[in-house]
Amino acid sequence: MAEGKISTRIRVRYSETDQMGTFYNSRALEWFECGRTELLRASGVPYRDMESRGLMLPIVESHVEYLGRAQYDDELVIFTAVRMGGRARVRFDVAILQADTHQPVSRGWTVHAITSLEGKAVRPPQWFLAAIQRAGQL
Amino acid sequence: MAEGKISTRIRVRYSETDQMGTFYNSRALEWFECGRTELLRASGVPYRDMESRGLMLPIVESHVEYLGRAQYDDELVIFTAVRMGGRARVRFDVAILQADTHQPVSRGWTVHAITSLEGKAVRPPQWFLAAIQRAGQL
Amino acid sequence: MAEGKISTRIRVRYSETDQMGTFYNSRALEWFECGRTELLRASGVPYRDMESRGLMLPIVESHVEYLGRAQYDDELVIFTAVRMGGRARVRFDVAILQADTHQPVSRGWTVHAITSLEGKAVRPPQWFLAAIQRAGQL
Amino acid sequence: MAEGKISTRIRVRYSETDQMGTFYNSRALEWFECGRTELLRASGVPYRDMESRGLMLPIVESHVEYLGRAQYDDELVIFTAVRMGGRARVRFDVAILQADTHQPVSRGWTVHAITSLEGKAVRPPQWFLAAIQRAGQL
Repeated sequence: MAEGKISTRIRVRYSETDQMGTFYNSRALEWFECGRTELLRASGVPYRDMESRGLMLPIVESHVEYLGRAQYDDELVIFTAVRMGGRARVRFDVAILQADTHQPVSRGWTVHAITSLEGKAVRPPQWFLAAIQRAGQL
Repeated sequence: MAEGKISTRIRVRYSETDQMGTFYNSRALEWFECGRTELLRASGVPYRDMESRGLMLPIVESHVEYLGRAQYDDELVIFTAVRMGGRARVRFDVAILQADTHQPVSRGWTVHAITSLEGKAVRPPQWFLAAIQRAGQL
Repeated sequence: MAEGKISTRIRVRYSETDQMGTFYNSRALEWFECGRTELLRASGVPYRDMESRGLMLPIVESHVEYLGRAQYDDELVIFTAVRMGGRARVRFDVAILQADTHQPVSRGWTVHAITSLEGKAVRPPQWFLAAIQRAGQL
Repeated sequence: MAEGKISTRIRVRYSETDQMGTFYNSRALEWFECGRTELLRASGVPYRDMESRGLMLPIVESHVEYLGRAQYDDELVIFTAVRMGGRARVRFDVAILQADTHQPVSRGWTVHAITSLEGKAVRPPQWFLAAIQRAGQL
């Protein structure tokens, strides 16, 4: 976890637990989304504005490692980094830790295509590349 | 639960449990949706076709009673009935039972507006009223 | 919406939207839970501590009115109030507004039983009643 | 996707869509779970029985490729295969296709530890290895 990365905090909701008493595995991907959202906001171009400008970032691949438990009401901190991948792809790397003990909870990444609102692959425009570059330096 | 109503079956997913070991309360509303979907399909006009024809049924009110436990992998049966309400509303009544013991799990209803795809209230067209009437007799 | 109530803020997650472009109806119940969690924390007895002390509050009834749209990344404020109901019940009233415009998004309530961890109804102990009373005055 | 594997069918729920109009990415992991559940049932030892006998399979890693769209009400077929991995691990490989066109929707895998109900790693007992072997030949 490089220092200086943008982080955001969440609390584990009861709805996110399962009968094992920890969070259900798919929730990690929803928390990864929280990290992406806050990182892009910090870059100056929130993801909602990207969609308003006609770009979407549909996911093409995800990978999650489950490293530790997180129970209802635990406060977690989500660190997120971003960089352009090859072939008009954007990659977000995420790490989720317990906010107080810094015990690792989950780690992983997602890769996204860059498309029009109709889902057609597009060449990323300059404003988008600039935003990702700024976000990558946060 | 009147007999003869259209029913559909689901299994409780692990993702739908919470740390109490039964299903998380909001899942009942997702199962109510499964009931609506199958009832409208049986009427001859699946909900997806309603949206294709330019109508949406956004929810305006929901009510759920939680009557019994349902655990991971339990098979449940969902009974659904429909009727027009006043002021261009559609109401669905739902009951969810354990499939084998018929123990009640949940009961409730949802009320929906009838709108265009832009969310404007519309007078329900004849094909829609006919579909609801057919569904109401199932 | 009485003033002075405890409130908490959330952002609508992309995962909470549906193809109508607003939040899916069951998410309201998950946001109601966020409100309960923060209200009980403010009372001095977080819900997680209630379970640690051997009490659970399983839901028995929920009611939701859907009053306005809320889109991805909208910031919402959740106001929650609590009071004892008859027959060993606890009732939470919730209102969700757009954080900036104060446009109403959803309103409703949930009623909960008071049980042991095994799910048996119990007479609420004094520390519990005191916590609910404090929370009711927040 | 080898033929002969156990498959199960689901329909995309409205609650599983997002504002892009296709399924939200984390749902794939919930559908993978449906595949695991039905494969283990076919092996003669449903997962619920594994937990009753004192074994849990907490997830340690997941990987998902998103290959095609799936919209509300689309019927999907989930193919699942299982095999033991090194170091007391179980691996499930999953492929999700459109039921009618066989267009690929998603593909991936999950790896699970084998633990006691308290979460301690355990040596897999003989009945468990036999069940996985039977499931692996389905």
